[in-house]
Amino acid sequence: MDKNEFLDYEYPDLGPVPSKIEAEIIPPCDPTADDRLYHICITAISLVVMLILAILARQRKVGNRQKGLPGLLSPVNFLDHTQHKGLAVAVFGVLLCKLWGLIISPNPLPFTTDTENKQNWVILGIFYYPALYYPLLACGTLHNKVGYVLGSLLSWTHFGVLVWQKIDCPRTPLIHKHYSLFSSLPQIACLAFLSFQYPLFLFKGLQGTEKNNATEDLSSSYYNDYVKKILKKKPTKISTSSTETPKLHQRIIDAVKSYIYTPEEAFRFPLKLAISGVVSFITLYQVGLLLISAVVPPLQTARSGIDEDIANVLAGFKIMLSPDKHEVVRIVTHYMWCVEVCFISAMTVSGLVSLAMLMRSMVLHRSNLKGLYRGDIYNVYNCQRSIRASRPALVCWMGYTSFTAAHVFLGMIIQTMVFFLCLLVAVFLIIMPILHGENLILFQILLSMWPFWLMIVLAVLIQHLTGRFCFIKKIAGTRDLHNRGNLFLLTYLLFPVNVLIGVLLAVWRIIITALFNIVHMGRMDISLLNRNVEAFDPAYRCYAHYLKIEVSQSHPVMKAFCGMLLQAGGQESSSPQRARDAEEGIQLVNQEKKQHKVSTAKRARRHWQLLYTLVNNPSLVGTRKHFQRQTTESFLNGSLNRSAKDGSKKEAAAKETEVAASN
Amino acid sequence: MDKNEFLDYEYPDLGPVPSKIEAEIIPPCDPTADDRLYHICITAISLVVMLILAILARQRKVGNRQKGLPGLLSPVNFLDHTQHKGLAVAVFGVLLCKLWGLIISPNPLPFTTDTENKQNWVILGIFYYPALYYPLLACGTLHNKVGYVLGSLLSWTHFGVLVWQKIDCPRTPLIHKHYSLFSSLPQIACLAFLSFQYPLFLFKGLQGTEKNNATEDLSSSYYNDYVKKILKKKPTKISTSSTETPKLHQRIIDAVKSYIYTPEEAFRFPLKLAISGVVSFITLYQVGLLLISAVVPPLQTARSGIDEDIANVLAGFKIMLSPDKHEVVRIVTHYMWCVEVCFISAMTVSGLVSLAMLMRSMVLHRSNLKGLYRGDIYNVYNCQRSIRASRPALVCWMGYTSFTAAHVFLGMIIQTMVFFLCLLVAVFLIIMPILHGENLILFQILLSMWPFWLMIVLAVLIQHLTGRFCFIKKIAGTRDLHNRGNLFLLTYLLFPVNVLIGVLLAVWRIIITALFNIVHMGRMDISLLNRNVEAFDPAYRCYAHYLKIEVSQSHPVMKAFCGMLLQAGGQESSSPQRARDAEEGIQLVNQEKKQHKVSTAKRARRHWQLLYTLVNNPSLVGTRKHFQRQTTESFLNGSLNRSAKDGSKKEAAAKETEVAASN
Repeated sequence: MDKNEFLDYEYPDLGPVPSKIEAEIIPPCDPTADDRLYHICITAISLVVMLILAILARQRKVGNRQKGLPGLLSPVNFLDHTQHKGLAVAVFGVLLCKLWGLIISPNPLPFTTDTENKQNWVILGIFYYPALYYPLLACGTLHNKVGYVLGSLLSWTHFGVLVWQKIDCPRTPLIHKHYSLFSSLPQIACLAFLSFQYPLFLFKGLQGTEKNNATEDLSSSYYNDYVKKILKKKPTKISTSSTETPKLHQRIIDAVKSYIYTPEEAFRFPLKLAISGVVSFITLYQVGLLLISAVVPPLQTARSGIDEDIANVLAGFKIMLSPDKHEVVRIVTHYMWCVEVCFISAMTVSGLVSLAMLMRSMVLHRSNLKGLYRGDIYNVYNCQRSIRASRPALVCWMGYTSFTAAHVFLGMIIQTMVFFLCLLVAVFLIIMPILHGENLILFQILLSMWPFWLMIVLAVLIQHLTGRFCFIKKIAGTRDLHNRGNLFLLTYLLFPVNVLIGVLLAVWRIIITALFNIVHMGRMDISLLNRNVEAFDPAYRCYAHYLKIEVSQSHPVMKAFCGMLLQAGGQESSSPQRARDAEEGIQLVNQEKKQHKVSTAKRARRHWQLLYTLVNNPSLVGTRKHFQRQTTESFLNGSLNRSAKDGSKKEAAAKETEVAASN
Repeated sequence: MDKNEFLDYEYPDLGPVPSKIEAEIIPPCDPTADDRLYHICITAISLVVMLILAILARQRKVGNRQKGLPGLLSPVNFLDHTQHKGLAVAVFGVLLCKLWGLIISPNPLPFTTDTENKQNWVILGIFYYPALYYPLLACGTLHNKVGYVLGSLLSWTHFGVLVWQKIDCPRTPLIHKHYSLFSSLPQIACLAFLSFQYPLFLFKGLQGTEKNNATEDLSSSYYNDYVKKILKKKPTKISTSSTETPKLHQRIIDAVKSYIYTPEEAFRFPLKLAISGVVSFITLYQVGLLLISAVVPPLQTARSGIDEDIANVLAGFKIMLSPDKHEVVRIVTHYMWCVEVCFISAMTVSGLVSLAMLMRSMVLHRSNLKGLYRGDIYNVYNCQRSIRASRPALVCWMGYTSFTAAHVFLGMIIQTMVFFLCLLVAVFLIIMPILHGENLILFQILLSMWPFWLMIVLAVLIQHLTGRFCFIKKIAGTRDLHNRGNLFLLTYLLFPVNVLIGVLLAVWRIIITALFNIVHMGRMDISLLNRNVEAFDPAYRCYAHYLKIEVSQSHPVMKAFCGMLLQAGGQESSSPQRARDAEEGIQLVNQEKKQHKVSTAKRARRHWQLLYTLVNNPSLVGTRKHFQRQTTESFLNGSLNRSAKDGSKKEAAAKETEVAASN
């Protein structure tokens, strides 16, 4: 190789130019466990499992136990903070992976190979898969050994067949030979978790260590712990530190800390948020995998395929990199390698940023929830809102988990693209020219503009220095303007320079805004718009609505209160009538009348409890029977004002409980 | 023309294909009033005028009149609300037009034709032009007939020569033959205003109708009017209307109204904001003119230059519009015409949007200023800040007007580009296919996806309907969840569909965010970032700082109070010593001691006034002489807290003044 002619182009030797990778032909692979047969069988098995469970549930209902058929039909209580979240999270993870496969794969459903009507099969699949994995959730609902056995068997089957298929056919022609294998890893992990969890439940059930009402929300000690925690007196550290303004390094540490999620005692995420977190993480993994396997291998193939023809092609576009064709190949190969490195870096950065955002979201979710529990509506929403169930709020609540996944998906793709472009520009306009000392166009332009930059820097400096030393007079702790005449004169004279500075400022503004919005694209918990029009951001609007339902329906203090009432009732009578309503403890109040045999002392106590509940939770007044007969005009007017304060009143109720307890 | 073959392509006949416009050669034109000679003369004249003014000012100072040489050196009081704003606004307008010409023109300064060192000449020009137009401002400072005569002569000269030059050479080769003429229109208008204003002042001065202290800020009745206005009892309409939630059409009307600026009595804009408004408007005009004249004429030339060769060129790219070459010419001409229409529409829309934003900004400026005057810091800044002068605040205040112009400039360019692209997409992918019933690619894609859209619509509908009718129970004014089991089941089953809905939502979010940010790019009074990181937006940060200085230094209530004190003093003694400090009325307090001859009753009254001032304006305490001797440790600690409340205290002072007056 004649290097003497082009010493400047001493591109790093990436080893010998790789020999062409033969386009590897992956033979179509039929796994021993045929997908079609497997799905027909597992659908039948699932149906049988559901039938068995239904019969069991009906027997239980006859025996007056807690859960019946209705429990089987809603195996997940999304408004529960205390439930063991693993099962639901794992099933949602499996579902998401299946949905992902459904859209990527050319052949979405295993029952057919008809690729023409892919769209219709995808739509069918969208409803088929939730139904298919439904029994995996339902088996855990009955808290019954038979249920656990069935769950174990079902999850083992799913897990076993999937692993078997992947071992049989680790390589598929789709996108990249190993794409399919890696893409199913989260699904395998989720199924493995289920296969481990169900036997564990069974074991605990056999040992009798599982509490029969382990998932009974209101009897859990969590809500009481939460109330105890918030009523505990805080150390009065705040008053001493608030007078000092925090120092810079302290503020930086605080900022970094606010991105790290550390679990807190006496706070548990609502189930929906836990699912959202895991679903977001899986989405991140899948998007990253897709981007890497769809872009990098073709780039590598293209790089290895570069031969001396490229010099002719480039000459066609009048680009002459070097008269030596070997040199041209080397240079182009190096450029391609740079592009590859840029893409992988962009992907990595984007993934890390998304992970950081996910963590930050969790921190913010917690602080928002705690704020709303405290009744701190203004700080969370930046305006007064009524925290109660409404149609749009309910719709947003239902879709929240899915929307999170979709936003993370789109956010990560956009981030990667933007970072990739930025890195390309940086590498080819800044880093490469510096390294090779060639093509320093950008630097030459900047350098030739030195008088302009000097003027800008001087103008800024003058303004800051005069602002500091001439125009501000500091007298005994207060600052005031000084030398107004000269200030006005300088303002007038520097007007044209400041216009140019303003253009730089505006460019900086565009960069900052674009970067911020792109980085935070995947987060629904902050609005990307200005604070006055926050609600026009559909994602943030959805999050705000989601929080409303979550807080209004599962306020821990309210739940603790209902639990306390229930326990008090449970000590006196273990009436099944009462116990069945445990899950919706609020309705308890309605049934006070049905208890006639209790002593007068107990009745008085219960009356007091009722009154206390009603005073502090005015929204319950409407559920009282006699109330519904009243003429309600005046109440309706009043309720508008009152409902706005519901959140804070609930907290007040907790405080008063404490006061009452201490008396 | 054989139209039978391509009946589908019946493009509207734009008249006969225009004959080629000959590239019009504009002869270099030397105006009778040679620019170089003119500038040398006018610089000399301006120098002489300044000398005369300086001598006059010195004489006046000897005669112990109000303004002296210092007044001449700061002809604009940017912190004055009552001054006649016309002069300053017009001079800033002229300066902006000159700066614009400086950057656009290949030959920035008239003294030289050296185009190689353009950059250096531009830098020189940036400092030369403010100095050149300085006398136009200074002539009005002395409130003296000689000053007005000089001002009239100077502005007439500037105006006359400019008009003469434009009549001599209306067409220049720069950008477009008429660009130079249209570009100088705002400059001509500003100079015409000055040429009219100075004689008017002179006339008033001769008639004696001009008050000698017309520009004396504190003696104006404006501040008193403002205080009276805010102390007037509001009609108690608010309490009745606040219980009703506003109806939709009312809210729309309110939203539209908030974009229309209607002048309010008893509120005047600070001079800087008035200048910013006019400067923004001129920038809009100049950018619009530049875009139109730089893009449209070349497009028109290209359109007229299309001949049958274009068919061959297109064939080279394998684009076959029609086998008939005439038809191809017609189609391409039509396409070019569409592009032209799109560009002009985009420009118009962008201009109108920018104008609306300008109006909205003015409304917001007013409400922000009034809010800060009221001490309503939290609502304006969304956090507590101390309203007082500081170095960064001062720097931002100095540059604010220029930054506004720069942001409007960049905002309008970006808006036009984005709207242009959107219109192009809309026209070529939506409108043209519909009109001609051809190339309906987009519609075909959308149509072929109908099962997908149907599914999405159905899923959304189901969620909304069930949310409305099944899952929300409305009992006596309060709403609660109902049928929780089915709600959870539906949420689980619709998870995959909701992911797809979420992707649409995320796309919508991107569109909304991008559109909002692009439309509001030119506005500095709102942050484009999320409410928690607002301050990272450099433009908004600058605006926030600007407001601090404006409010802390020219709070109308404080000025009214100082004016009242001054008037009380003025009735007793017309001491020149006192009167000279009128402009910085706050310092009055310092000089109380120098008055020894007043009666005890008057002294008592003044002591009371002093005490009252100090109690309500604690920041003045520092300017007291004896205070500076005190050990001030405890005060320093306290002042930190106190200064944060300065704004609200000032308002409180006004309230108390009223109370005292009514007693």
